Amino acid sequence: MAVETRDAVGVIPPRSGAAFELAAGDELTVIDAEGGQVADLLAVSREDIREMLSSGRTLDYAERIYLTTGDKLYSNRSNVMLEIVEDTVGRHDFLLTPCSEATFRLCYDNEPPHQGCHGNLAAALRPYGVEDDAIPVAFNCFMNVPVDGQTGRFKVLPPLSKAGDRIVFRARMDLVIGLTACSAPASNGGSFKPIHYAVRKTGEE
Amino acid sequence: MAVETRDAVGVIPPRSGAAFELAAGDELTVIDAEGGQVADLLAVSREDIREMLSSGRTLDYAERIYLTTGDKLYSNRSNVMLEIVEDTVGRHDFLLTPCSEATFRLCYDNEPPHQGCHGNLAAALRPYGVEDDAIPVAFNCFMNVPVDGQTGRFKVLPPLSKAGDRIVFRARMDLVIGLTACSAPASNGGSFKPIHYAVRKTGEE
Repeated sequence: MAVETRDAVGVIPPRSGAAFELAAGDELTVIDAEGGQVADLLAVSREDIREMLSSGRTLDYAERIYLTTGDKLYSNRSNVMLEIVEDTVGRHDFLLTPCSEATFRLCYDNEPPHQGCHGNLAAALRPYGVEDDAIPVAFNCFMNVPVDGQTGRFKVLPPLSKAGDRIVFRARMDLVIGLTACSAPASNGGSFKPIHYAVRKTGEE
Repeated sequence: MAVETRDAVGVIPPRSGAAFELAAGDELTVIDAEGGQVADLLAVSREDIREMLSSGRTLDYAERIYLTTGDKLYSNRSNVMLEIVEDTVGRHDFLLTPCSEATFRLCYDNEPPHQGCHGNLAAALRPYGVEDDAIPVAFNCFMNVPVDGQTGRFKVLPPLSKAGDRIVFRARMDLVIGLTACSAPASNGGSFKPIHYAVRKTGEE
């Protein structure tokens, strides 16, 4: 049985990112402390960094583009990396890549350029050996991307999350997690806020 | 100005794959010769195989999940790899990863296992140095995945393509292409057919 041994709380400042390790069985809580803020989440296997989160595998097995409590996030090798065990929002995105310098060039040409979530994830994961080009579609916590099923068009709207809303993941393998406070104006309703997170060490799965 | 110099025609037998090179400016026509058959397409930069097709970048810039004539397919570095210049079907998928041995294990447990499009693409691209784990979401020509925008649920339905339908891509950089005749029952209406393709060499872009 899992035994709770330790909690850790972290704060990711606006428009930045962090990386940290989870052991199988650990629980990660991603908290939108102020409300209306997106957090891009990546997961990489600690055993082999070539195994990482896959949107295409995950969506295929879920048969849904919107994921929530009970859904599993799969790797490119079709192994379960994370399971969503609590979700107070119910709307997240798993279609779009982390915003990047190119996103700002192509989509926000009136904004000062920024390395975005891609640059922040790349910097945070580089010490673990993950190459910039290997960064895939992230699980974008709280990102609100409604899709029109008829036309296929989607919009990036402000998140539905209110202050204190959270999504909780349980690690199903030993992982390196990359996590950001997103840098793109549209994703966050035009302002940039921090993301809080907590890790509950459960000792063993 | 582009000058047509040579056409090449290839046939990909049912449930198999192929890889071949395109120069910038070349046109690739993917033909559903019998109708109702999906072809998974990948593109990798010949200059640096770490640069490859990205569903997340492409969808982000298109602001649509269904792509057709005029749409550009972007790499993970946000460069245009291919442009769709003709499309007689108008329904393709860019959400789901190529079917794999795990797809058969998890989704088709009554079917004999098969390496699927993932295995076929991996085998075809391995001589170019592409690792199996690096294979991302493919552009799934003719794959019919209608999404319910309210619930996020999707179905994999038989393709809308009829015999002779085609989609034509123009290469915007020097590429290695991986292309399959898809192996998954649901994607192809329960039967497996070949995919034909033609390459029009235009000399220069």
